Amino acid sequence: MTDFAKTRAAFRLPDGVIYLDGNSLGPLPVAAEARVARTISEEWGKELIRGWNTAGWMSWPRSIGDRIARLIGARAGSVVMGDTLSIKVFQALAAAAALVPERRVILSDSGNFPSDLYMAEGLVKALGRGYELKVVEPEAVEAAIDDEVAVLMLTQVDYRTGRLHDMASLTKKAHAAGVVTVWDLAHSAGALPVELERCDADFAVGCTYKYINGGPGAPAFIYVAPRLAAVAEPILSGWLGHEAPFAFDLNYRAGPGIERMRVGTPPIIALAALDAALDVWDGVEMSDVRRRSMELSELFIRQVEARCPSVTLASPRDAAKRGSQVSFRHPDGYAVMQALIDKGVIGDFRAPDCLRFGFTPLYIGEAEVLGAVAILEKILTDGSWDQPHYRKKAAVT
Amino acid sequence: MTDFAKTRAAFRLPDGVIYLDGNSLGPLPVAAEARVARTISEEWGKELIRGWNTAGWMSWPRSIGDRIARLIGARAGSVVMGDTLSIKVFQALAAAAALVPERRVILSDSGNFPSDLYMAEGLVKALGRGYELKVVEPEAVEAAIDDEVAVLMLTQVDYRTGRLHDMASLTKKAHAAGVVTVWDLAHSAGALPVELERCDADFAVGCTYKYINGGPGAPAFIYVAPRLAAVAEPILSGWLGHEAPFAFDLNYRAGPGIERMRVGTPPIIALAALDAALDVWDGVEMSDVRRRSMELSELFIRQVEARCPSVTLASPRDAAKRGSQVSFRHPDGYAVMQALIDKGVIGDFRAPDCLRFGFTPLYIGEAEVLGAVAILEKILTDGSWDQPHYRKKAAVT
Repeated sequence: MTDFAKTRAAFRLPDGVIYLDGNSLGPLPVAAEARVARTISEEWGKELIRGWNTAGWMSWPRSIGDRIARLIGARAGSVVMGDTLSIKVFQALAAAAALVPERRVILSDSGNFPSDLYMAEGLVKALGRGYELKVVEPEAVEAAIDDEVAVLMLTQVDYRTGRLHDMASLTKKAHAAGVVTVWDLAHSAGALPVELERCDADFAVGCTYKYINGGPGAPAFIYVAPRLAAVAEPILSGWLGHEAPFAFDLNYRAGPGIERMRVGTPPIIALAALDAALDVWDGVEMSDVRRRSMELSELFIRQVEARCPSVTLASPRDAAKRGSQVSFRHPDGYAVMQALIDKGVIGDFRAPDCLRFGFTPLYIGEAEVLGAVAILEKILTDGSWDQPHYRKKAAVT
Repeated sequence: MTDFAKTRAAFRLPDGVIYLDGNSLGPLPVAAEARVARTISEEWGKELIRGWNTAGWMSWPRSIGDRIARLIGARAGSVVMGDTLSIKVFQALAAAAALVPERRVILSDSGNFPSDLYMAEGLVKALGRGYELKVVEPEAVEAAIDDEVAVLMLTQVDYRTGRLHDMASLTKKAHAAGVVTVWDLAHSAGALPVELERCDADFAVGCTYKYINGGPGAPAFIYVAPRLAAVAEPILSGWLGHEAPFAFDLNYRAGPGIERMRVGTPPIIALAALDAALDVWDGVEMSDVRRRSMELSELFIRQVEARCPSVTLASPRDAAKRGSQVSFRHPDGYAVMQALIDKGVIGDFRAPDCLRFGFTPLYIGEAEVLGAVAILEKILTDGSWDQPHYRKKAAVT
């Protein structure tokens, strides 16, 4: 049984803030401060170049990947860290497409995070030869899977509404049609039980700065099913994915298994922060996280619908069909969210009209949910959100 | 006039170590510790998601890029940070090739860092359509530039020998033949005056963990000549290179100028360390760095050649034709380097037989050069390098 009081104490959360945006950037794990300081002062400062061996830096992308693997239903040795999620999407997509060279369609949906679609656009353009990206509505994905499709690329949880795709059934349908799957777990890893092996997923990618709390811009991960790891072709064939990086051969030979998905020199300081963030997950069961997340989001929906008639639920009502976030629509969603943030309730806004709230049981409980609803009710009732300075767009929304 | 006593005091170097491997991983700038701690505790910890606006995180890839620009002869607004050098090579190479769509040859040399060649291999394979990577000897590059070549991709300073390509004349020759250039500045940025604009270079990429001292795995940079920035096509078309990232459009539209070379969420903690490392460069003139680096490397060569007959100079003898490192060959170079490191002289080894020493005037002076030579002479004379434990290969060499 997960001890949520313990996990909560593992975070540094500022006073006076109700933080419902861990689905965008997780808060600071207390241990990350000392851990990064140690990596900087003791490892980099004293070991210098020797740190690659003495501190084991070179193996961190794998050892940290193993810690992520446990959270996403994958076995050790099937996940590696590095780069950003967009890069990992590109890498997975190219490798997936190369497995079905006679097909030309990459199928995705309009609920996918735009960067995934953009990266696919870039890849399709580079590949030429009739490759195309086909984007359908989320509800139309299943019917669009046919034997013209090479790759099905989906983000499991919709970044706006929290709508959850059924990974098991879509992967099964895809495989029956000879389609390779790429799952983006940006809003699933650390949010709900992901069962990559059980679903027989082919490729998966994700970021670690949301529910995993690795820090702003923390490194991404890629999973390759063990049955494919030795045949997946790395388009981003960097030296650290080479069979023998330090032989400095002139020709590329892909490394064994998941190693080949490494590209360049790993971001050590960022990985140190992430590794500390993963300490919090020791002893945490994803099934407990899911249960609590559902309780909290159900409570939030009930309370908001009872007390805030001017907003409309944008997320699926059935908790089993949502990830760990709840979104409500409001025509002036941006201004409402700025007013909320100003009053200490931090969620975020996603264009055109979504107020988005993430429920992260590691550090959020009923008190925060009720506190947030009270403030939302107040600003919607007294109209205090309707001020010019709340409408003024920031660079990052 | 650069104050090298001041720059030296800006680094934390361990006692008893002569560090001649700043060409592989620069040492810790004192200011980086507090700077990273501030970003973690104050910005991430207290501002949480708001840090993207309040701490200006989202603009760091550009503002830090501007600081790099000054060191490489580029104007503000032409450099952006992110990803790793291998990724930046891929990005530059694809954009360069797309500028001359009727040609199919990417020309490089065997002195290039292998990862650059590997990334080109991956790109060529993905592009298909007859694209090929042609690798010639460094001395044969000039003669191989003809009107079949689409892109000339070179690392300015050879990672093994320090041999320096003439960027101005090769770029001129390339342009005369209608060839687009991609320069890798891994061993030039912070090592010697690079004059991208004066040489009329098209694309350049580099890392920041060597001479720029940004920390292990610090983010890379990419430069696009201002005249090309609005037409260069991003193959890695990630959301942060989009014209309006937070509009979350379904289709990609490249952002203005260098912005389009951004891909995913920037690595904030790593960028904080790098920004602190760049503080050391304020007031440093690259011409002073170059003069001192030449003096130190000349002294090293003279002394080693006089006192260590069993090693042979692998670098060009003419300082004007070298970067800021000096390599000597020894048939048992690996074991000799391990023995040297054991005695506190840290250089590194590059297969098959190079002992590599970097001269970094920001924190290295004559005393370190003479001290290193004395220890090298001793272990070569008494044969103490010839022990089994020095021959045992580490994971990272």
